[in-house]
Amino acid sequence: MIVVMKVGSPEAEIARVSQDLAEWGLTPEKIVGKHKVVLGLVGETVDLDPLQIQEISPWIEEVLRVEKPFKRASLEYRHGEASDVVVPTPNGDIHIGEHHPVVIVAGPCSVENEEMIVETARRVKAAGAHFLRGGAYKPRTSPYAFQGHGESALGLLAAARDASGLGIITEVMDSADLEKIAEVADVVQVGARNMQNFSLLKKVGAQDKPVLLKRGMSATIEEWLMAAEYILAAGNPNVILCERGIRTFDRQYARNTLDLSVLPVLRSLTHLPIMIDPSHGTGKAEYVPAMALAAIAAGADSLMIEVHPNPAKALSDGPQSLTPDRFDSLVQEMAVIGKAVGRWPQPALAVA
Amino acid sequence: MIVVMKVGSPEAEIARVSQDLAEWGLTPEKIVGKHKVVLGLVGETVDLDPLQIQEISPWIEEVLRVEKPFKRASLEYRHGEASDVVVPTPNGDIHIGEHHPVVIVAGPCSVENEEMIVETARRVKAAGAHFLRGGAYKPRTSPYAFQGHGESALGLLAAARDASGLGIITEVMDSADLEKIAEVADVVQVGARNMQNFSLLKKVGAQDKPVLLKRGMSATIEEWLMAAEYILAAGNPNVILCERGIRTFDRQYARNTLDLSVLPVLRSLTHLPIMIDPSHGTGKAEYVPAMALAAIAAGADSLMIEVHPNPAKALSDGPQSLTPDRFDSLVQEMAVIGKAVGRWPQPALAVA
Amino acid sequence: MIVVMKVGSPEAEIARVSQDLAEWGLTPEKIVGKHKVVLGLVGETVDLDPLQIQEISPWIEEVLRVEKPFKRASLEYRHGEASDVVVPTPNGDIHIGEHHPVVIVAGPCSVENEEMIVETARRVKAAGAHFLRGGAYKPRTSPYAFQGHGESALGLLAAARDASGLGIITEVMDSADLEKIAEVADVVQVGARNMQNFSLLKKVGAQDKPVLLKRGMSATIEEWLMAAEYILAAGNPNVILCERGIRTFDRQYARNTLDLSVLPVLRSLTHLPIMIDPSHGTGKAEYVPAMALAAIAAGADSLMIEVHPNPAKALSDGPQSLTPDRFDSLVQEMAVIGKAVGRWPQPALAVA
Amino acid sequence: MIVVMKVGSPEAEIARVSQDLAEWGLTPEKIVGKHKVVLGLVGETVDLDPLQIQEISPWIEEVLRVEKPFKRASLEYRHGEASDVVVPTPNGDIHIGEHHPVVIVAGPCSVENEEMIVETARRVKAAGAHFLRGGAYKPRTSPYAFQGHGESALGLLAAARDASGLGIITEVMDSADLEKIAEVADVVQVGARNMQNFSLLKKVGAQDKPVLLKRGMSATIEEWLMAAEYILAAGNPNVILCERGIRTFDRQYARNTLDLSVLPVLRSLTHLPIMIDPSHGTGKAEYVPAMALAAIAAGADSLMIEVHPNPAKALSDGPQSLTPDRFDSLVQEMAVIGKAVGRWPQPALAVA
Repeated sequence: MIVVMKVGSPEAEIARVSQDLAEWGLTPEKIVGKHKVVLGLVGETVDLDPLQIQEISPWIEEVLRVEKPFKRASLEYRHGEASDVVVPTPNGDIHIGEHHPVVIVAGPCSVENEEMIVETARRVKAAGAHFLRGGAYKPRTSPYAFQGHGESALGLLAAARDASGLGIITEVMDSADLEKIAEVADVVQVGARNMQNFSLLKKVGAQDKPVLLKRGMSATIEEWLMAAEYILAAGNPNVILCERGIRTFDRQYARNTLDLSVLPVLRSLTHLPIMIDPSHGTGKAEYVPAMALAAIAAGADSLMIEVHPNPAKALSDGPQSLTPDRFDSLVQEMAVIGKAVGRWPQPALAVA
Repeated sequence: MIVVMKVGSPEAEIARVSQDLAEWGLTPEKIVGKHKVVLGLVGETVDLDPLQIQEISPWIEEVLRVEKPFKRASLEYRHGEASDVVVPTPNGDIHIGEHHPVVIVAGPCSVENEEMIVETARRVKAAGAHFLRGGAYKPRTSPYAFQGHGESALGLLAAARDASGLGIITEVMDSADLEKIAEVADVVQVGARNMQNFSLLKKVGAQDKPVLLKRGMSATIEEWLMAAEYILAAGNPNVILCERGIRTFDRQYARNTLDLSVLPVLRSLTHLPIMIDPSHGTGKAEYVPAMALAAIAAGADSLMIEVHPNPAKALSDGPQSLTPDRFDSLVQEMAVIGKAVGRWPQPALAVA
Repeated sequence: MIVVMKVGSPEAEIARVSQDLAEWGLTPEKIVGKHKVVLGLVGETVDLDPLQIQEISPWIEEVLRVEKPFKRASLEYRHGEASDVVVPTPNGDIHIGEHHPVVIVAGPCSVENEEMIVETARRVKAAGAHFLRGGAYKPRTSPYAFQGHGESALGLLAAARDASGLGIITEVMDSADLEKIAEVADVVQVGARNMQNFSLLKKVGAQDKPVLLKRGMSATIEEWLMAAEYILAAGNPNVILCERGIRTFDRQYARNTLDLSVLPVLRSLTHLPIMIDPSHGTGKAEYVPAMALAAIAAGADSLMIEVHPNPAKALSDGPQSLTPDRFDSLVQEMAVIGKAVGRWPQPALAVA
Repeated sequence: MIVVMKVGSPEAEIARVSQDLAEWGLTPEKIVGKHKVVLGLVGETVDLDPLQIQEISPWIEEVLRVEKPFKRASLEYRHGEASDVVVPTPNGDIHIGEHHPVVIVAGPCSVENEEMIVETARRVKAAGAHFLRGGAYKPRTSPYAFQGHGESALGLLAAARDASGLGIITEVMDSADLEKIAEVADVVQVGARNMQNFSLLKKVGAQDKPVLLKRGMSATIEEWLMAAEYILAAGNPNVILCERGIRTFDRQYARNTLDLSVLPVLRSLTHLPIMIDPSHGTGKAEYVPAMALAAIAAGADSLMIEVHPNPAKALSDGPQSLTPDRFDSLVQEMAVIGKAVGRWPQPALAVA
């Protein structure tokens, strides 16, 4: 932590600030610059809030943080080694991480009925997917919109899991539902709108299933990693980060701005695996394939893609869903890029 | 709802789309423009999702919504009349709304100990505040930062209420805590990070205490009103909207961008009362007074201002807190503007 | 400037970096923290680019700037004293600055014809304005939209100046037009879209007329002050900063987000006078009055308001223009707030 | 254009609005919905400003545009066919467009001296580049930063062109310099900060060299296409669009947010070729390769990459520049993706 004093700060005030900081257990080292004095704070500063220190004196101009605020999520925490989240599914263990082939998650926004979800599971499995996504509880902007079939949809997901052997990823919106969701889900999803629902983060951190943490619509990289830190600090080491588009000034064509630069940025900061969701990230089916291919080229560990047997009749998010046929051909295109970057499974994709 | 067909759409396709829409119970009226055909949909379109309609045909270029998506929150719902949220407090009923004097909420970010909160309550009461704010449960970016004293802090808020007669406003982060919070709080706050925690919105909507709904950091005006709609639709008519700064590209000096234009914009859209929080809105105590005065001049119904007896020792948000003395003088400045716009109580402010 | 070395940086590399920096004429002082080493650079660092220093070694994690990059625009440059831009007009010298009454600029977006501009000048003068604004050259998003009457409009502005005695503010878009604009204009405006047109900034800095510098749509406070610095460094000390709304994620109701927090923020950073433009800042006439009053309460030195005799027939920007009658009544409302904050002229407003 | 009337609009007012619109040469068709009346305007509406129409009556709630505002830039203008910008260079004609291999532009931010620019040209040519970029005139945030060597640098670019056979791309900031720049440059660049410098756009549109139009930092897709429309409307059909990162709320790690979704979005809207600049788009050399590969996978027609022989000594933008060696290996990686998507030249890359 670096404390920058204002031009003209009285000597006595600088001494007083130094003394106060010493009482916090820190060793301030003074550097007298040409125009300003700065104090470098030596000691355990990670948990300090720069804004807190600023309050010590009105002569403090700003306080600059030198340490990153995340620990367990940091790359240093694992000495530069990528994490490998292993998810047991009926089809076998799926490894998600930098040293493994790209993992594909596909399925509809919402679970609508048994036939639809089982059929979708079979189709995406045949195309090469490893996980089925599908919402039982849906966060909707309007209270009058379809809110998901809730608990009954969990049973349908279990049926689709049995029928296809795919792992299941579904969202938890309320910690009261967590237990019954975790009975069915192989990975529990925390949605973008709940990325800073800290109560929920603590609770998914205190259970055993891996957690898919979507980035909040206006969350900085650092806030996102701090949200992961909540889960890690609560004892759950299996966190997957998922970029799903951020909110920017232009939403006329693409609904969100898919921020693919998180791939190289997160690689330099964290050991956690990274998933990209081009369906929510763009909001329009016709933009999904280009962004899916780009994500693989840039090093994504996993892709989440919305697929619906009949997008025009979907109860939610139809416009961003691919048909199963379009998904089939997209997986073929993804395979070409995946092989080019050495991140595609060697044997045949689907040996169902 | 207006359906815009692409240039060159085949007649047969336009007929098919019209037929599909008719099956949804709508009457499509066709307008043949110079370049494009548009279909105006007559019928009950409020609950329709434009994106859903778009899926009907790849020849649909876009679907434009003509109806607003909110109902109970709309100004029309009360025939153009402003709502008046009445909160009973030990000092009497406090009315928050366009036809009443400005209501002042003040207090620390977090409840730290009994002496501190009772003393702050007495000071802000003497200065002219009507409500005491203070966090028992705190949403913090870092899991390692002070998370609030929780349940024990609720008892301290009750003591401050008894000692000062002020109403209490405190935040709920987890619906499991709602019941015990509502026993103490006169107004229950939903924070910015939970503005789209729809489970929580439904639950605060199903209880009796008025709800203060803070705007999410990147929530559009429409999303904010839809979040209010969740509470209203669940049966609670007493919702106060609170602007607390939005996230923009520049965060170097002010931490957020306080969007005061919500005052005239919301007035034209909704009957709900509007509070402004310049403390979170700017993040720095020295910017608070100018923004508080601006808010009153622009027509705010209520102001929320952070006050801490010793900001340098605050357990959270110190840098944006005023000292009680600075708050005293700010209330005097606010009174000048409040009187100028006819929104200040006629009798002496503080008859403690 | 503070250089933060990565965890685990080799001693030899830290020594090499220090040596390199010494060759740049700086004295690096080393602080060995618990986890990291930082180097505080003593010497003339204002003109250094932190990004440049970062390139010295891959072991440098980040470089933090301690000095502000602006000099002539800084408050320190005038030892904490506000600037006073004095503009001679036919009606006498107008002073724009913190220690003077609020200065009002009003008029249409574009100069349309002589009758219209002269009539508007007379009306806004009668209401209390000090300057007439009106565009001869108009920056329009579309090449097919009305681009302003250009040179011929300058003659009409001169006629309006003669008829009303008001000072003239008009925009320069192309330095080739600067000379003839400066013959008519009392203040030359650089528009938001040209805020970082550095060639133009240098040229308006090299002439004598005061310059009104509008904030770019996504310009940070610091970039805005650096744009002012271009003008100041070129020799023109008379720069007025004008906030006109920034671009954020929500543009559905207000076209831009008027950032009134620039008032307290700029006051703490610069001596330059500050104007607020609520017409462009909101884009809708009905939102203008609330924001104009807020600006005065928050300490604006000047207001710019669009007024058009017949907004429905305006060639540009009609929807954000007030009618002369609405402007009349707004000035009365502004006077109430202006008097409350001690920033309104003592004698009668309009002694025409 | 669709005019939406407010709930409760009087019949007489609707009739008056219709009559007014008829006077503008439009045929309004009235649709009486369940709650609202809308008027569909038939006729030549492309050049109309929706905001203008809104002014006709206070009973108009909003005006929705159905036509796109761009014409010459639209995909329809070329009946769905991609444009092919052909640039003659000493090494032969280079085709930039959807049906051609990826074109590579590389070079330093600024031209520093002859040896440096000639050497860089040779190195990037050998690696596979088709164009050399290098700034003679540099837009810099600070007036105290290196502003480019100006005219003398143009001579050095000519020398590098002769030595390498590469085409030259360099930026024009001031129309006064356009003629001498166009003598040397094969493609004239308009930078992000000048994207809405409409005077400059008209001038580059009135000369013969192809124009590279960078997207403004907060320009919407539509504003960007309208800027291109200025150039096209002025007579120059050879415009290349270049995405270089937009400004969002998070700038801590990547300096800008590279918006790769412009690739599928622009493909659906315009025939113009698309270049991606991951160097400015991320601001950090270590993030460039991942984004360059992603751009090719997503369908970019061209890539612009900063290369500097010694980034640590660069006079500008060092931190985002690759060394020639890193560029060499990046081109090899790009070739793998380029071949996978069928956008890489068949014969050997460099036959120098």
